[in-house]
Amino acid sequence: MSIADRWLLPDGVKEILPPQTRQVEGLRRQLLDLFNCWGYDLVMPPLVEYLDSLLTGTGNDLALSTYKVTDQLTGRLMGLRADTTPQVARIDAHSLPRETTARYCYVNSVLHTVPANMLAGRSPMQIGAELYGHAGVDSDIEVICLMLESLKAAGIQSTITLDLGHVAFYRALIEEADLSSEQENRLYQLLQGKAITELEAFLSSIELSADRAEKFRQLIHLSGDLSVLDRAGELLGGMSEATDKALQDLRRVADAVAQCYPQVQLYFDLSELRGYNYHTGIVFGAYVPEYGQALVKGGRYDQIGKDFGRARPATGFSADLKVIAELSSAQSSGNEAIFAPADGDAQLHLKVAELRKAGSRVICALPGEAADATAMGCSKQLVKENGDWSVVAV
Amino acid sequence: MSIADRWLLPDGVKEILPPQTRQVEGLRRQLLDLFNCWGYDLVMPPLVEYLDSLLTGTGNDLALSTYKVTDQLTGRLMGLRADTTPQVARIDAHSLPRETTARYCYVNSVLHTVPANMLAGRSPMQIGAELYGHAGVDSDIEVICLMLESLKAAGIQSTITLDLGHVAFYRALIEEADLSSEQENRLYQLLQGKAITELEAFLSSIELSADRAEKFRQLIHLSGDLSVLDRAGELLGGMSEATDKALQDLRRVADAVAQCYPQVQLYFDLSELRGYNYHTGIVFGAYVPEYGQALVKGGRYDQIGKDFGRARPATGFSADLKVIAELSSAQSSGNEAIFAPADGDAQLHLKVAELRKAGSRVICALPGEAADATAMGCSKQLVKENGDWSVVAV
Repeated sequence: MSIADRWLLPDGVKEILPPQTRQVEGLRRQLLDLFNCWGYDLVMPPLVEYLDSLLTGTGNDLALSTYKVTDQLTGRLMGLRADTTPQVARIDAHSLPRETTARYCYVNSVLHTVPANMLAGRSPMQIGAELYGHAGVDSDIEVICLMLESLKAAGIQSTITLDLGHVAFYRALIEEADLSSEQENRLYQLLQGKAITELEAFLSSIELSADRAEKFRQLIHLSGDLSVLDRAGELLGGMSEATDKALQDLRRVADAVAQCYPQVQLYFDLSELRGYNYHTGIVFGAYVPEYGQALVKGGRYDQIGKDFGRARPATGFSADLKVIAELSSAQSSGNEAIFAPADGDAQLHLKVAELRKAGSRVICALPGEAADATAMGCSKQLVKENGDWSVVAV
Repeated sequence: MSIADRWLLPDGVKEILPPQTRQVEGLRRQLLDLFNCWGYDLVMPPLVEYLDSLLTGTGNDLALSTYKVTDQLTGRLMGLRADTTPQVARIDAHSLPRETTARYCYVNSVLHTVPANMLAGRSPMQIGAELYGHAGVDSDIEVICLMLESLKAAGIQSTITLDLGHVAFYRALIEEADLSSEQENRLYQLLQGKAITELEAFLSSIELSADRAEKFRQLIHLSGDLSVLDRAGELLGGMSEATDKALQDLRRVADAVAQCYPQVQLYFDLSELRGYNYHTGIVFGAYVPEYGQALVKGGRYDQIGKDFGRARPATGFSADLKVIAELSSAQSSGNEAIFAPADGDAQLHLKVAELRKAGSRVICALPGEAADATAMGCSKQLVKENGDWSVVAV
């Protein structure tokens, strides 16, 4: 590798430089503070864990996107976290086993072997919040509201569309259909890809009663505004307790969001599953027109702690802080700097210390440096006037 | 792996849980804010880079402690950063090529294949500051003062010992000695390990004039208080321009520290090199009695940007924020929470939003939850009195 390209970063791996770092850091603090005000405790799980812990109950997608390395102390395989959720599940099940509901939040870099989608990088700064220990829809409502509040705090100006789904409908249809796991996988892919024509062909190719095939066909079309729930009630109502409950829960979420965040557009999509193996109830995503993928994603995943010996209900969301920062209109507060000349005067030294203590940013020139205040990006400077050092505009 | 031990973390890999996370996060913000006040810009380099970039100019130690993974998009080897300094060198050389001096700071998780020392973990939260573009001792003084200021801000109460060295003495002796690279490596190991007896044996076993061997023998004993510099002047004075300059620079650092941080103890150790291949000038470490390793380490490494096509002088320090947090006496500010009952009253909802907006932490009970305010760790709660919701002690 020549000097000329040694600085190249791998595709999808990005660094953040000043002044953008100030914005990302500001947003990071703002969102963690917001989570704290809602009772969510910050956790800091490690960068690596044994693979068995990291890939617990999360399905094949995560296994493929996780980088593996060998623990040089034991020879066992470790994974670099590709998702923080299994780590939080481990913490809830083992590290902090509370009997009450528990609220967690986190922000940390994760690493993906390949980008999660065409717009995503491979090392997102994942930020998220999770609520453990409550099975009812009210906890889903809480995390959805916290998600919307976060986007508000982040200064997302565009209209936000909240995309709502529930895995119960697909689950109920699959249970009825008695498919091989290969057929089920294929069906899942087609539904997630909204591949209507291929779905038709696939449904004709397998042994499925006309009535059941029709329901899968209808599921893919059950998307749109609130009226989708009425249509779903007509088509799928009474199919199972779980689907009836799911419709009722989606209505509860819709009502709560309409009340607290009337500016948010609601979109229902009953074939959207967002990681079928992972989720067990309501699934959701937040979209803005400028970004072609979900800005934040979340849902319920009640079984995730099971492999750690403690299956508690859980619901939560996560996002890439870098993406939110790019879409945020929030400006990082000014970071004006004061330039101090290279002067050994003890009075200057005291003045600089005093200014810094009060929160000012002071850059001290070093002996032999040619740069002046302007070259150093300072709008003010310290000058000696009548024996005293004072701050003046450049 | 059974359920019983699936939660086990690899040796030396630690998670941080509440309430410690609050302290670590508080310290993180405090130190980044301090760095900002001193003019150091935050950079956020990526978790992985191509190995060629990561291991540039850093010597063999870093290669051994870096985990390697294959980039699935190109098949090239990538490394998980084990040290942020080479990344900052790349940023200074390529991403932000400024002509003036440049100040950078960072805080991020790094990963080591094996612990750096007996007390260290394998995934430190590395925090550091670096000053590029100035070759004189004044930039060393600036970063050493910033390091001491950071420890003060972190509430380190114990007496801090600042350990100062300079690679010039060893370099000059090696240049005179004309050793094979194998012999040089061995000598380096013995000096770093302060293995006096083995050093004697080794010096007798190689062809070296009595006078030169004597100088290596003396070097290992050149440690202690300020008088070490006088002894070094007598023994090594006039050996080379570089060593004379090194003595002068060490005196300058000692004077500056004594003036600004009189409570800091100075300790000189002229055979301490802290990573010989890496450093080119003054090297330093900060110690406290409760911790058997350097709490913060740093030094000058002028050639580090060379492989990126831009060798600028550079000096800086880094530490593990987790270690500093453990030794810090700073308490995280109270995080009292207010408990809100599960009540659909719109007035309650407004009150909760208002309290959170003002920065209060409010935990809302969820329907069906058995836990009361105390069980949820809340010292206050919202109760309805005369039709109004107010905060009262539990």
